[in-house]
Amino acid sequence: MPKFNNILIIGLGMMGGSLCKSIKKNKLSRKISAFDTDQDALSYALKNRIINYKVTDLVKMEHPDLIIICAPLSSYPSIVKKILLVVKKSTLVTDIGSSKGGVHRSITKLFHDSNKSFLSSHPMVGSEKSGIKFTRKDMYKNKVVFILDKESVSRASYLKLKNFWESIGSITHEIDSKTHDILMSQTSHIAHLMSYIFVKSLPQKILDENLPLLLGGGIKEHIRLSKSNPQMWTDIFLNNKSNIIKTLTRIQKNTAILKSMIKTSNRTNIKSLLENTYNKTK
Amino acid sequence: MPKFNNILIIGLGMMGGSLCKSIKKNKLSRKISAFDTDQDALSYALKNRIINYKVTDLVKMEHPDLIIICAPLSSYPSIVKKILLVVKKSTLVTDIGSSKGGVHRSITKLFHDSNKSFLSSHPMVGSEKSGIKFTRKDMYKNKVVFILDKESVSRASYLKLKNFWESIGSITHEIDSKTHDILMSQTSHIAHLMSYIFVKSLPQKILDENLPLLLGGGIKEHIRLSKSNPQMWTDIFLNNKSNIIKTLTRIQKNTAILKSMIKTSNRTNIKSLLENTYNKTK
Repeated sequence: MPKFNNILIIGLGMMGGSLCKSIKKNKLSRKISAFDTDQDALSYALKNRIINYKVTDLVKMEHPDLIIICAPLSSYPSIVKKILLVVKKSTLVTDIGSSKGGVHRSITKLFHDSNKSFLSSHPMVGSEKSGIKFTRKDMYKNKVVFILDKESVSRASYLKLKNFWESIGSITHEIDSKTHDILMSQTSHIAHLMSYIFVKSLPQKILDENLPLLLGGGIKEHIRLSKSNPQMWTDIFLNNKSNIIKTLTRIQKNTAILKSMIKTSNRTNIKSLLENTYNKTK
Repeated sequence: MPKFNNILIIGLGMMGGSLCKSIKKNKLSRKISAFDTDQDALSYALKNRIINYKVTDLVKMEHPDLIIICAPLSSYPSIVKKILLVVKKSTLVTDIGSSKGGVHRSITKLFHDSNKSFLSSHPMVGSEKSGIKFTRKDMYKNKVVFILDKESVSRASYLKLKNFWESIGSITHEIDSKTHDILMSQTSHIAHLMSYIFVKSLPQKILDENLPLLLGGGIKEHIRLSKSNPQMWTDIFLNNKSNIIKTLTRIQKNTAILKSMIKTSNRTNIKSLLENTYNKTK
């Protein structure tokens, strides 16, 4: 028998759609419902049996036992406002957003003030591809999912969420939202930011004339990351603003140091810096 | 019958060793000779039949029809000095260096002044792994190999080199050394440099405590590139110094622009910058 009766996915993009497929594959819920402002995505999901039921208006939703918000961060406030109008106390609400800063703090407060259960998640998965057509049923398998600030809900709710992720094959890891955002700013967020800068700095002439010759040495990866959803990443950069600014400042400092070593042909110091990074991740 | 009688590889690292294996696999030379200052690499290559013959002193080499320098750029001057003492006019000398700047210019002049044939190559292949134990017989297959300034040798020599690379499955592409170095500074060289900076900027605490959780979103690729040979990359950065400084300046400028947009929460401009990079490589 499925562990859940009705799971509602809000936002049927690549991440949300893949989540539906993972739930279905693992027979985790009797029913998979979805809401999206994009009617084409909903029709596609129904037609391809990725979901069982489409919710046309959030305030008219049936009562799911789990709601997972898979929409861009900037749409959270309007979504949460509607959820809070109708959601029962027994329903656990989670999300999969990459930043637990600004928007996250404000909606956490809304749930808390309404005495409703919200426990945030962040699966360390993703792709530069956007949209329901790029969904994969194994997207979350063997991937780390952060569970944020677990003490903000009852132990039962926490275990329910942990169990959900583990049932689709993910590896859960608890973290507080502040540490999470610092960690992300120094890794995933700055990596995406640097790839956007890398591609922005590539002269168009190179791309037009020589791109197929050059797809090695990290360039492919930079181009792949720079194809990530612009709306989603604008939201992430702004929601994790202060940490990202700090990380960027460190990157700028190290760039200036290495640049100056190259400028002055300081072979010993360049080699030593390169050897340090070589050994750092051993 | 093999197209070559004796090919001499100077430098039995991952690149040179893989070249030996490719030559052997394609039955391209009756004999494969090698020179390296590392006696262990030579013994390993002989024992594992990667080469047929080890050259213990370059000035005592037999007369190969093709010499390929696969050593770090900073060792070129001493190697070339020895080669020029004994090499015949009929022998074609090439190399596989990633930068065609400083060292390249000076050794090209030495060959030219001695009226000997030197035509430089740059295969767009590589790996963060160093050493003879990481060699692969298919490393050069279906990969682009730049042939630099082809007019600097006779048409026969040029065709000999082109034919060599194509016989091991590479795709040759002609380019002048100046354009090549600009192109590399804006792509492969800057990608490596940014990965060194990325890893240098990662707090050690993250690496010690959380690394296995974070290997996605480009971080894996940055760590991989930062494991490239420090000696080799010090040489490359210094040999392509002026182009790299120019590219770095552009990267710094774009970093400052994006940072300022984030700082001032300029959502419209961030999204527009991200959309531009998204569309740029379509």
